[in-house]
Parts: sequence; structure tokens; C-alpha cells
Amino acid sequence: MLSEIRIAGFGGQGVILAAAVVGKAAAIFQGGYATMTQAFGPEARGGSSSAQVILSSEPILYPYVTQPDILVVMSQEAYTRFAPQLKPGGILIAEQELVHIEHMPTGIRFYGVPATRLAEQLGRKMVLNIVMVGFFGAVTNLLDREALRRAVADSVPPAFQELNLRAFDKGFDYGSQLLLKLAENGDGEEALSLESA
Amino acid sequence: MLSEIRIAGFGGQGVILAAAVVGKAAAIFQGGYATMTQAFGPEARGGSSSAQVILSSEPILYPYVTQPDILVVMSQEAYTRFAPQLKPGGILIAEQELVHIEHMPTGIRFYGVPATRLAEQLGRKMVLNIVMVGFFGAVTNLLDREALRRAVADSVPPAFQELNLRAFDKGFDYGSQLLLKLAENGDGEEALSLESA
Repeated sequence: MLSEIRIAGFGGQGVILAAAVVGKAAAIFQGGYATMTQAFGPEARGGSSSAQVILSSEPILYPYVTQPDILVVMSQEAYTRFAPQLKPGGILIAEQELVHIEHMPTGIRFYGVPATRLAEQLGRKMVLNIVMVGFFGAVTNLLDREALRRAVADSVPPAFQELNLRAFDKGFDYGSQLLLKLAENGDGEEALSLESA
Repeated sequence: MLSEIRIAGFGGQGVILAAAVVGKAAAIFQGGYATMTQAFGPEARGGSSSAQVILSSEPILYPYVTQPDILVVMSQEAYTRFAPQLKPGGILIAEQELVHIEHMPTGIRFYGVPATRLAEQLGRKMVLNIVMVGFFGAVTNLLDREALRRAVADSVPPAFQELNLRAFDKGFDYGSQLLLKLAENGDGEEALSLESA
């Protein structure tokens, strides 16, 4: 079992921390393997930031993601650049107020979350990234909620643990409720396109 | 030209952010290539955190560090585990109040910095990692001061930019003064062993 994930946004949004939390949850708190890579280079100039995470049940020999199964985007530029690389059947997760989805690729499941607004409800916009991690956890169901929570707590300075755990829970709960709503509607595709409108 | 760097400490110290700043300075603000990798796995359980950065003038094909040229440690455990891997002739940089250096390997240059204390002088212990980045910048002279500063500003949320730039400057200035003192003494080795005592 191998999942390739790309998380992308702009500098200062905490893209790398989000990626590290996901990798840590998989490897340290759930007993698998994970690797996180950030390749800096000419393409990264201009304030964008992107990290790649691979989760696996085996040790990972090649850490670069070419076609992600899951793409998490927190900026329009990140969406424009990386959406075409998504694997067919993959999952696209976006901060819905920062990313305007156009030309939705066929066969991709899309989940939008107002992460900035949820973070602002906690009084700290900077936890946007951890709200995204919580939402990612709920809609992908790839990792245990508890493993992700522990990885969050383990990745931030002690003074910020409580704030970040609340941000995680807020994102996770929002995702769970979204999935419930979709299940009730009995038509995921339609509800999702409403979500993204 | 290729430099392999490992930064290690415990979870919550901001090891990954420090590594990302170094990579970003090299690639985005200084026109080279850099890659940052964190491999999570069984060996990472127990609260330790470690990231690998490779700086190069060419694109990087293999992103894993085996024998670092430079090792930056912020915890005793990180020192114990990674010091034996340092390349002969390499540089060891340590938070001198968190790491007690024993059995100093031959042929290694050591630089200690009271980064926690310097961070506390700014009222925020959490910027310890960026103090370390500043100190690293001064003693290795591997990257431009301005490129590193810009990478710091680009890697933290806007509300924390000023604090982190001050932390960077504090670490850099401490490192510059240490080098000056060593040059005046005319005997680096001796002064360094005093520093580390």
C-alpha cells in the first residue's frame, strides 16, 4: 500500500509542517513508513511552497512524488500548477476561499473546506494548515484520527499544542460532517459540486 | 559543489523549519538547488526529529544524506546518534546548553551556541531554531546572510516575521563574534575547546 500526497500553498502558510504531521502520523504513531521531501529550485521562486509525502507499509526507496493520489492546495497558484498532475481517481482538497476551482478534471473527487475561516474562529489564522490536516484526515480516512492528533501535538512547540489540537479537531469535524451530508444526499458527486460552487 | 547537512533535535523544536530555511536560502534566494528530506520510520519514534538538506549547484538526483558535512544538533540524543556519521573534516554545531559534547571526534570543527538563552532574551524560546540557523550561517559561511534572512522571512507567518528576523540576527551576530574571537586568539582549536567547556 502506497499513497503519494502533495501539499502546496504559499510561503508562510505552514505547508511543510502540515506535510511533516501527515508523515509522522503514518510512521511514528501508526507503525508504517513515510518520507517527506521538499525540492527547492527555480520553480519554487515566487513565494510558493510545496512538500511531498509518501506513506507506505514498506521502506521507501524513492521519495519523489510524480503523480499524487491526493493533492492538498492552499493557494490558487498551487492549484493551477499541480492539479494537472493528479492521478486519475485521485482526491483534490482545497481551501475553498483561497482556491477557485475551474475546469475540474474528470474522475477526481473534490473536497473544499473554509479552513481560513475556521482558523479565524480560533483567533489565529496561522493554524489554517492544521485545520487542513484535520480535514484531510476526515475525508481521506487514510490515517487514524488519534495518530494524526498525536503527530500534531508532537510537531509544534508546547505553548501552541492546545491551539493546534483545536484547529485539528475543527478541520476533522468539518470533514466528518461534510461526508455525512454527502452520504445523506446519496449522491456524492452532486453534493460535491454544490460544495465547490 | 555539494554540501550535505543534517539538522536534528527533538519534536517541537522546529528542526524541519530550520532545514527548510536553509534549503530555501540556497535555492530560491541564491540561485542554486536544494532538497530537504525527512524520513520518518521506526528510528524516529520517541520524539526525535531530524531533517536532511542537500545544497548543490546542480539538480539533485538522490536526496538522502549518508555522511553529512555539517551536523546541527539541538538535543543530546541527536548528538549521540548522528555525530558518528559526520564526515571527517566536517563541522559540528550544537546548542551548547542542551548538548554535552563527549569524545569529540578527531578532525571535526565544533561550534557551540547558547541558542536557547539567546532566544529567551527575545522573550520567545520557540525561536531557538532560527537562532541556530543564524549561527549556522555565520560559522559555515556557506550561504549569503541576506539570502538566509529572506528565507526566514518567507518561511514564517507574517505576524512572526519580525521576531524570527531578530532571532536570526542574534544567532548570526553571535557566530560572527565567535569567529572574530577565534581569529584573534590565533588558535582556533584551543578557543573552541574553551567554548565547548
